[in-house]
Amino acid sequence: MYVVVPFDARDPKTRLSALLDSDERQRFARAMLEDLCRTVEQTGHEPTVLATADLDVEWPVRVDDRSLSAAVNAVLAERDEPVAVVMADLALATPDALERVFDADGDVVLVPGRGGGTNVVLARHPDFRVDYHGVSIRDHRERAAAADLATTSVDSFRLSTDVDDPSDLTEVLLHSDGAPATWLIDHGFAVEVQSDGMTTVRRD
Amino acid sequence: MYVVVPFDARDPKTRLSALLDSDERQRFARAMLEDLCRTVEQTGHEPTVLATADLDVEWPVRVDDRSLSAAVNAVLAERDEPVAVVMADLALATPDALERVFDADGDVVLVPGRGGGTNVVLARHPDFRVDYHGVSIRDHRERAAAADLATTSVDSFRLSTDVDDPSDLTEVLLHSDGAPATWLIDHGFAVEVQSDGMTTVRRD
Repeated sequence: MYVVVPFDARDPKTRLSALLDSDERQRFARAMLEDLCRTVEQTGHEPTVLATADLDVEWPVRVDDRSLSAAVNAVLAERDEPVAVVMADLALATPDALERVFDADGDVVLVPGRGGGTNVVLARHPDFRVDYHGVSIRDHRERAAAADLATTSVDSFRLSTDVDDPSDLTEVLLHSDGAPATWLIDHGFAVEVQSDGMTTVRRD
Repeated sequence: MYVVVPFDARDPKTRLSALLDSDERQRFARAMLEDLCRTVEQTGHEPTVLATADLDVEWPVRVDDRSLSAAVNAVLAERDEPVAVVMADLALATPDALERVFDADGDVVLVPGRGGGTNVVLARHPDFRVDYHGVSIRDHRERAAAADLATTSVDSFRLSTDVDDPSDLTEVLLHSDGAPATWLIDHGFAVEVQSDGMTTVRRD
């Protein structure tokens, strides 16, 4: 199995702009990428980073500056083996959670992301292609069904939590002690309960 | 095992007020409660509804108008058997997801809710008590650790999704075909992709 981790090396995590400046977003995104790649390694697989620009990491990098879908589909078309596409911002991922995906049956194994995204795709059939635009989990299910491919969904809070907006930082602080959580704590973030009982993050 | 489903029979789902009027919130909350109770039944257990006021459902009802924590702790103190506390608004719950909880090892089994809540507690130790105020998942872990109780967390997107605010309705529409999803569709709700690529629900 070939594991590819797409990564926006240019302007990552724009929806965190209210809390992190451009340089911080780069460094936080990088901390998430490296943590995720190490988690993949712990499952016995070597990740390949699929980046929009060259970057210096300890894993193989494939540069493709096209859209996410085009870049991933080029990998799917090329590889003559199952391909897992694991998003770089799954800061709650654990080896156990990823292994539930890698061990699941099916021509296509999908993990939904909150808000209609697709956080992990494991494609074991050579014809499956991705489209991350719009409500991708629905589109991926429909494509797989139309092609008569057996599809499995893996039910994981950890893997459904991609870190996109400020509310996701709460989840990182509450459910992880990995490098991204440490980075947030080192940069003054903490979980706070508002007067309405809702949790949020504050930065000192 | 005794399964209790807390339910606010008075003014449920206030954070959906922008989309649903008071009567609709009552009926949608009721659809979720009944769907969840049926899902519990499919695991081979009879749910008891722990309600803030009397209500007419096909399952036993225990009325307790105190705070959620006080009402649940009264049940935990009374029952001489394992008690599972399953929130009524887990509209994505499936028998499989609940069985992963009921089958998990541990004196205390916890399922985090998004935003720091605790969506399912399975207490097998007679001394464990809940506190749903604040960041309850953190408090529940700390209480269990302080009492030297073996604690297990179950990693489930379905059970971590409690339906509180409008963004949660997207998840119901995308990942369920149960009665709450049908209710939403019948009342004109659909998933929509905004110009920024984010998904939301619209109501016709």
